[in-house]
Amino acid sequence: MKKNNIGVIGLAVMGSNLALNIADNGYDVAIYNRTTKVGEDFLATNPHKNLHLYKTMEEFVDSLEKPRKIILMVQAGAPVDKVIESLTVLLDKDDIIMDGGNSNFNDTIRRTQEVEERGFKFLGVGISGGEEGARFGPAIMPGGSEDAYAHVSEILEKIAAKKDGEACCAYIGDNGAGHYVKMVHNGIEYADMQLIAESYSLLKNLGNFSNAELADIFNYWNQGELESYLIEITADIFKVKDPDSDADLIDVVLDKAAQKGTGKWTVEEALNTGTDASLLASSVFARFMSAQKDQRVFAEDLLNVNLENDVEKNQELVEKIRQALYASKIIAYAQGFDLMKNAAIEHDWDLDFSSIAKIFREGCIIRARFLNRIADAYTKNPKLHNLMLDEAFKNTLIDYQDSLREVSVLAIKNGVSIPAFTNAIAYFDAYRQGRSNANLIQAQRDYFGAHTFERIDKEGSFHHQWGEVNED
Amino acid sequence: MKKNNIGVIGLAVMGSNLALNIADNGYDVAIYNRTTKVGEDFLATNPHKNLHLYKTMEEFVDSLEKPRKIILMVQAGAPVDKVIESLTVLLDKDDIIMDGGNSNFNDTIRRTQEVEERGFKFLGVGISGGEEGARFGPAIMPGGSEDAYAHVSEILEKIAAKKDGEACCAYIGDNGAGHYVKMVHNGIEYADMQLIAESYSLLKNLGNFSNAELADIFNYWNQGELESYLIEITADIFKVKDPDSDADLIDVVLDKAAQKGTGKWTVEEALNTGTDASLLASSVFARFMSAQKDQRVFAEDLLNVNLENDVEKNQELVEKIRQALYASKIIAYAQGFDLMKNAAIEHDWDLDFSSIAKIFREGCIIRARFLNRIADAYTKNPKLHNLMLDEAFKNTLIDYQDSLREVSVLAIKNGVSIPAFTNAIAYFDAYRQGRSNANLIQAQRDYFGAHTFERIDKEGSFHHQWGEVNED
Repeated sequence: MKKNNIGVIGLAVMGSNLALNIADNGYDVAIYNRTTKVGEDFLATNPHKNLHLYKTMEEFVDSLEKPRKIILMVQAGAPVDKVIESLTVLLDKDDIIMDGGNSNFNDTIRRTQEVEERGFKFLGVGISGGEEGARFGPAIMPGGSEDAYAHVSEILEKIAAKKDGEACCAYIGDNGAGHYVKMVHNGIEYADMQLIAESYSLLKNLGNFSNAELADIFNYWNQGELESYLIEITADIFKVKDPDSDADLIDVVLDKAAQKGTGKWTVEEALNTGTDASLLASSVFARFMSAQKDQRVFAEDLLNVNLENDVEKNQELVEKIRQALYASKIIAYAQGFDLMKNAAIEHDWDLDFSSIAKIFREGCIIRARFLNRIADAYTKNPKLHNLMLDEAFKNTLIDYQDSLREVSVLAIKNGVSIPAFTNAIAYFDAYRQGRSNANLIQAQRDYFGAHTFERIDKEGSFHHQWGEVNED
Repeated sequence: MKKNNIGVIGLAVMGSNLALNIADNGYDVAIYNRTTKVGEDFLATNPHKNLHLYKTMEEFVDSLEKPRKIILMVQAGAPVDKVIESLTVLLDKDDIIMDGGNSNFNDTIRRTQEVEERGFKFLGVGISGGEEGARFGPAIMPGGSEDAYAHVSEILEKIAAKKDGEACCAYIGDNGAGHYVKMVHNGIEYADMQLIAESYSLLKNLGNFSNAELADIFNYWNQGELESYLIEITADIFKVKDPDSDADLIDVVLDKAAQKGTGKWTVEEALNTGTDASLLASSVFARFMSAQKDQRVFAEDLLNVNLENDVEKNQELVEKIRQALYASKIIAYAQGFDLMKNAAIEHDWDLDFSSIAKIFREGCIIRARFLNRIADAYTKNPKLHNLMLDEAFKNTLIDYQDSLREVSVLAIKNGVSIPAFTNAIAYFDAYRQGRSNANLIQAQRDYFGAHTFERIDKEGSFHHQWGEVNED
């Protein structure tokens, strides 16, 4: 009997879409779901000659060619460990388990070790692009047992999104590296969305632009260097009419943003690795603030400060906001890639940042023309300390920083909250400051806690009795 | 034989100072250290009739009156668990173990349960004020077995710092509540220090004030509503001469700030509880940025943007910075207390915020006149949603927000990085915005991930096919 090329366990929407994607690419796919009915219903609505449903995990495993390749598409957390537990008693040496869920990279590090110790191979596969991506081509970030990747690269690269003929899929690094990069992708996604939302605040509150005008502005921006999926759908959003009223739909959507936790993980990792990710963090905090709708409504009158809107609505304002957005976007990615750089050192991963930027170019939410520039920057200098130091980005930042300053100033004067923009300029200005104010913090710490300090003029740790000031 | 009133385990500097403090207050203190020599050396240099050293834990425990009261002053982490393990085999029902170290509140929650399950009592006691505080009166935040507190309150309140006759010590809440509040204290301390450091940046870089002038300015500020330990020592710091050169010492201190992790815990907790703590976070990120000294020096020339300093050095500027600092300080504490409010809900703690503010008034690093105003605010309204909504703070914010805006604008125009100040104004403006930009974020999430959205005009969850725009 002909064996299946690969197996998919878990037939919720992501798993079934991924199975269909693989099947469409000509592979025989064994599929399995704990509740067989789910699989039967799926096949009933999506009959496909390459999909083969099995009712027991034994039959499913037996149906696969060796080394077996099995993708788990089950809920992140304990369910992944449970399936691994059930699977490993059925597998043979060198069989490959892939976790295609949204797992925390720490779990993936642990699982890679556990699975490898039992003689099998493990890949933590970050898959980005949602249901649509899984079905027709996601961005794929596989990490883990490197020697296993050769066995699955053909399939993964075939089902991945393509950009300029290149698959948006490449081996990322050992153990949790793939899921780590997927996590940072999501943290950056939060920032991209927040920066667009702040641009919306500025255009609406300072420029008084209508939704129709906003649609045109974002559509125009999408023709240039800001071209990206998120700018494109933003333009679409402003055109949509509410089916239930005369309003534009955007105006009846409640301004409470939810979140699923991967943005939060990214900020936690910034804290763990000592990375300044202030802009990424501000995007997460802004969602928390948005959730306090009742308090905000209550505070609006109480903290009313009657600021004057002295801004002129014109093309010049739109262009300044565009430049501020683009400069801030560079800074958001500088923070995200700095985080990956620090994580690579900590976890001993050999990350190829050019390759990572290329993976992000298609199939995922942050896909954008901009990512070519990042790929170029890291191709030119794989050891680049910070994206802002790349010649091309540096020049753009120097050109656009005036607009970022001007827009930030306008917002602050007029009471418009744009924390991602102002964290961008604060990061830029802190980074280009050879001598900062942190000498005072070190002096304070030594004063009250004898924590010692270093000096600019000689090596060593010093302590001073600061309080004993000789006042003549 | 007369029994000892209390025991202290661990005679490093914090433990020995605390033991001396208790002994000075007239209590007989049993002391024990795993290496007896440490205890002998301590007693040799600090002989005290009330201190009684024991060589074995058995003798130490036997010497205590019942219920026994034992304070652990050992390194946070595994050592605490080890000592608890050794102790519990020697104790009797209802004996009280106190952990006076810098433990993570999650450990304290676990330990309270474990120790109580064995029939003993446990208190996680946050102690703030460093070596000096431990010796002569720290701020003390005990949480855990509430019925145990009655047995130790007399001792703890006697050794605590006093303010207006009140002890800076009060029972905080169940299990980890004491260590949680101590953690938030430290997070706020980071913010206080960062705000002072940014004021220093502004005064130095915009106002060109000399160190002698800075000392006078901070000294003057310390006479008014900003009166606090950190402002006071900052004034001192600017007066200190380098013993090894002609320079002022502050000018040869390296601008790389270190940190010990409790600020990081606070931000992690902000993420866990869904609290916007952007200003507190910016203080932690600024330390990370400061640590990248080599990169900053390298970037200084490369990202030079030739901004003009068009600021006049005068008293008006100083007063604006003072007001900006004070407004930002209110906002930092608003975030810290909001975090405690959210944690109280999550952990089912009945926190008395007025009492907590009073504890902070003396003995610890953030002690300040300002804390009386916080205590007043929560005395008037224990259920206050946010400090900014208190009538008195609200009025100050409305008076001072103009200065915070002006100073932020000056800094941004002149390239001075002040992330804590700009996060303060962004938080203020976001909080008083009844309708925000988060409707766009929800629309985007529904567009690309079918995450659904709520509406402003009716209950329920909605999904729209945003991409199917009808363009005639």
